[in-house]
Amino acid sequence: MNIHILSLFPEMFTGVFNSSILKKAQEKEEVTINVVNFREFAGNKHHQVDDYPYGGGAGMVLKPEPIFNAVESLVQHSEHKRRIILLCPQGERFTQQKAEELAKEEELIFICGHYEGYDERIREHLVTDEISIGDFVLTGGELAAMTVVDSVVRLLPNVLGKAASHEQDSFSTGLLEHPHYTRPVEYRGYKVPDVLLSGNHAAIDKWRREQSLKRTVERRPDLLDQVELSDKEKQLINELKSKL
Amino acid sequence: MNIHILSLFPEMFTGVFNSSILKKAQEKEEVTINVVNFREFAGNKHHQVDDYPYGGGAGMVLKPEPIFNAVESLVQHSEHKRRIILLCPQGERFTQQKAEELAKEEELIFICGHYEGYDERIREHLVTDEISIGDFVLTGGELAAMTVVDSVVRLLPNVLGKAASHEQDSFSTGLLEHPHYTRPVEYRGYKVPDVLLSGNHAAIDKWRREQSLKRTVERRPDLLDQVELSDKEKQLINELKSKL
Repeated sequence: MNIHILSLFPEMFTGVFNSSILKKAQEKEEVTINVVNFREFAGNKHHQVDDYPYGGGAGMVLKPEPIFNAVESLVQHSEHKRRIILLCPQGERFTQQKAEELAKEEELIFICGHYEGYDERIREHLVTDEISIGDFVLTGGELAAMTVVDSVVRLLPNVLGKAASHEQDSFSTGLLEHPHYTRPVEYRGYKVPDVLLSGNHAAIDKWRREQSLKRTVERRPDLLDQVELSDKEKQLINELKSKL
Repeated sequence: MNIHILSLFPEMFTGVFNSSILKKAQEKEEVTINVVNFREFAGNKHHQVDDYPYGGGAGMVLKPEPIFNAVESLVQHSEHKRRIILLCPQGERFTQQKAEELAKEEELIFICGHYEGYDERIREHLVTDEISIGDFVLTGGELAAMTVVDSVVRLLPNVLGKAASHEQDSFSTGLLEHPHYTRPVEYRGYKVPDVLLSGNHAAIDKWRREQSLKRTVERRPDLLDQVELSDKEKQLINELKSKL
């Protein structure tokens, strides 16, 4: 996969893209990541990328030319299937399903605004997707782009050490994860539940599934609609709900 | 505000914390940000921070001691009111309301796991808050911590250039933002709407409010429940909904 990021703050990405899984994925050549400062594509003497909004009001608006030009310079010699993604609070909410969808593409281009609005013509005539990572205000699209890139790249083949290691994560099973415990068996008087020390794997599996269901009922009951449940589990859920 | 981040990958934070608003907020001394590698608090010969899960299964689990020790070293000489925040997929969904709540605190401590689960005793006996930035799987809590820090710090007094400049952002008004346009007035045949060039400010305000309502109806109807609307606006929304 080829990833291109358009940003006015390319230096923001260095630490995240040169660490951990994203670093390894690039070393293994499963992904290339290219950060472009779209100010270089301003096409005007003062490298101006924004201007006052028509109709007045506070704040500045990113001009269409620098962003159209930067995207077109990236795609002109490439025949890859691609998505052009605008990070913005008005976008579709990012989810694990969307990450899985994007992980199938050959090329992703991310456009990161900073402080400002985007000229509407970028939205209407250039991009294929608008994505928001949540209902909160960020200074720019950079952190959102890093978040999407991390969640997508870890789904690419050969990126994670063990093929299955992302499948047990929360949201991959549809339920929140059960509690984990490790050594020491007692810490400041707080003990590991006996069942986990029993060596009885059927009992451990049952406890973990029940704990997953319990945590999901308590914290994210909205997730339960999408999970396949046995009749016994449905009964357990009703009992748990009645105790809330 | 004092912010402490506990992470095994401190180098991930450099680019984000040394750019833009977060950089300026530190220069203005509105916030201090301190990134701590909790491996230094492992308290064992091999600086081991994780171990196998009791009860078996794939993946490793972060041990309680390094994280308890690191947090306690930070708080022992400090009388600040504080929140101790675990970034995890099982946490409360982060929102702008939560950012506003955290922005009132004197001290925030963020705990970032990486790949792995947390020993449940950290969750039960150390932290005050568990936060998730969304329903997707990330390699670690680092990007989530950066996201929360960015959205909180920009709400602190004197951090943004103009006191009001964050108030018009999406989610601060409760509606999605209206479209923005800037120069050129025509770009590749795509024109700025006439009303924005009219100089008629009442007409411009009306158009913007209607466009905000329209975009919210189309993309995020769930937000409408929390917004105060005039009778005329309610009628407009019903008309817009009937066209979907």
